[in-house]
Amino acid sequence: MSAFEPAEYANRLRLAHGKMAERGLDLLWITVPENINYLCGYAGWSFYTCQGLIVAPDRDSHVLVVRDMDVACARFSAFLDAGRIVGYPEEFVGGDRHPMEFITRLIRERWPAARRIGVERTGFFFPVGDHDDLRDGLPDRTLCDASGLVNGLRTVKSGAEIEVMRAAGRIAALGISAAFEAIAPGVRECDAAARILEALVRGEPESGGTPPCEMSLTSGDRTSAPHLCWSDDRFRSNTSVNLELGGSRHHYHAGLARSFHLGPPPEPLQRLAHVVGEGMDAALATVRPGRTCEDVEAAWRRVLAREGLEKKSRIGYSIGLGFRPTWLDCTASLQAGDRTVLEPGMTFHMICGMWKGGLRFVASETFLVTASGHELLTQAPRGLLVKP
Amino acid sequence: MSAFEPAEYANRLRLAHGKMAERGLDLLWITVPENINYLCGYAGWSFYTCQGLIVAPDRDSHVLVVRDMDVACARFSAFLDAGRIVGYPEEFVGGDRHPMEFITRLIRERWPAARRIGVERTGFFFPVGDHDDLRDGLPDRTLCDASGLVNGLRTVKSGAEIEVMRAAGRIAALGISAAFEAIAPGVRECDAAARILEALVRGEPESGGTPPCEMSLTSGDRTSAPHLCWSDDRFRSNTSVNLELGGSRHHYHAGLARSFHLGPPPEPLQRLAHVVGEGMDAALATVRPGRTCEDVEAAWRRVLAREGLEKKSRIGYSIGLGFRPTWLDCTASLQAGDRTVLEPGMTFHMICGMWKGGLRFVASETFLVTASGHELLTQAPRGLLVKP
Repeated sequence: MSAFEPAEYANRLRLAHGKMAERGLDLLWITVPENINYLCGYAGWSFYTCQGLIVAPDRDSHVLVVRDMDVACARFSAFLDAGRIVGYPEEFVGGDRHPMEFITRLIRERWPAARRIGVERTGFFFPVGDHDDLRDGLPDRTLCDASGLVNGLRTVKSGAEIEVMRAAGRIAALGISAAFEAIAPGVRECDAAARILEALVRGEPESGGTPPCEMSLTSGDRTSAPHLCWSDDRFRSNTSVNLELGGSRHHYHAGLARSFHLGPPPEPLQRLAHVVGEGMDAALATVRPGRTCEDVEAAWRRVLAREGLEKKSRIGYSIGLGFRPTWLDCTASLQAGDRTVLEPGMTFHMICGMWKGGLRFVASETFLVTASGHELLTQAPRGLLVKP
Repeated sequence: MSAFEPAEYANRLRLAHGKMAERGLDLLWITVPENINYLCGYAGWSFYTCQGLIVAPDRDSHVLVVRDMDVACARFSAFLDAGRIVGYPEEFVGGDRHPMEFITRLIRERWPAARRIGVERTGFFFPVGDHDDLRDGLPDRTLCDASGLVNGLRTVKSGAEIEVMRAAGRIAALGISAAFEAIAPGVRECDAAARILEALVRGEPESGGTPPCEMSLTSGDRTSAPHLCWSDDRFRSNTSVNLELGGSRHHYHAGLARSFHLGPPPEPLQRLAHVVGEGMDAALATVRPGRTCEDVEAAWRRVLAREGLEKKSRIGYSIGLGFRPTWLDCTASLQAGDRTVLEPGMTFHMICGMWKGGLRFVASETFLVTASGHELLTQAPRGLLVKP
């Protein structure tokens, strides 16, 4: 089930070892699910329990620690020999004993000389209590912040990853097609959401979908809210619908957002859609290696300013691997002040939502930075999608 | 969009205030998404950013802090006056400045006398870095562990919550029906998953579905792995399929797992299914107020032991509200050593997966503890589901 060849994982580990050496780290305790998956392929739905990937700087010394029950998930999804998958017994689940007791003992025994251990202090699946138990169980070691060490490697995609991202982009477009068919006056939001998710998970004949991290679907007044789930309400004529979805392949995502209007759209909404489209074109035209993230945002900003408009939030972020809740790489953002230099192989979700006078229009694209510019990974009709 | 009446939320807050008084807490900083939703109804898909609900012990003093962009999500989903929804500016997103700078200032200004602040040290959406920034930004306060304070309230469901759980149970059963239709030799796992998710999100005519936390679908060899996503592989004749899904209504879940067999099932698998069914019947027959969680597990264990079988992991857990990744209440477990006394209104997902000689059979039910016994919330054919 591994999404990539062994050489891909070997290369990722090699890059991680380089970063460890730069930071003087003897060991990593990786807990961000995307980072675990990136380094070894593990894709079990078990990150609600204590688990992590231990990475030592020598080539073959990385060990995945999961709940005993999930060892089988690792055997089928991770690119790891059986000896490098360690399960902690079920007595550490649901009761008073914490898996960190087992994990700190393992680290003491197998890596007695590892002094500086990198941990992901800003990640979601490493609770404060786990951190303190790890620290207290290894009193002669130092826990160092290695947040972003692996995320940084994930920002530039390999050739194999780009192929997967392209499939995710095509799947995202299938979701928009399904939405265009399903959204109509009188239909419940949840019924449309059901058909969209069906299309996203079905995917293509040669590339099925994996579970998308999230999907926002709102209509009517609620279009002013960017991150809400669908409801039981029915779509009404002469209102708008905003949709943000992700196509997902091997847990890699391409984000895609569109606004729909049921009936003839009011002129100010069309105007807003036009300006947003112009701003996105300007921003996309700026993309090329050597430019910075803030250069891209500035191009958008200039178009908007001409119309007296402003978007205070960033217009995009590095996108890729995502278990829930997010598909962000949590590295570069398309925003003022972000001087990350664009490189071929980076992928971004550029998402431009604008409010004006009670109207909200949203459009997004996921793009790849190429040697000479950009390639759109999401191919869906741009602009306001009107159902007559 | 709030799932419940104002009185329901007022009661929950009152219970939380009681727990705060017991523990001598002046303020709570609640970050577990389910706990935020439980206390105020907030359901924005924004928990990948820093956010939390501040609860003060006086009746009307709770404040939701979210990213500025998500204030609109709060207006539509939370049962909070506009004055109790605070957005932090976008300059705190994606750059060097952390939202905790804003949040600690807010706490210092609004609650200058709050000395002991409860935080959720074991929850997922309160990273180590956020905890330390909160502590460092409030040097004259003490952060106390309030993990489980709100989870404990969530374990016994109200009448209104039980109605929602019943709908979730009916939706879960619709998922199993869709699975029975979709799973057939030659069909891709992802295509079956697509149809199942479609049914779960569509829900009932009067009760649409919300996004289920998770779904595991495996076939053939991979049935030995309990928590894996579907793949592109096609189902094959004379193999088994294991499915664990959740029906979800207003983000409340009922879990439901079943095994399917494509073709005449081998006798040992039928035998295993029979024993698991007997064990589940015995365990369910034990359920009533006054009994403990470990009593229920012991009844199961006795049946299994008679056949020389043993399941090392717990056979269930308290279930209810779930944003991703988990629908566990993270309180009581049906396992040896858990002396939680059953009370009317508790809901459990009893999940019994057994391996024997390369075969794996899984079945589960979500049940409600009633005044005199239990009520099954999931009504689907029990036992091995055979597609001839």
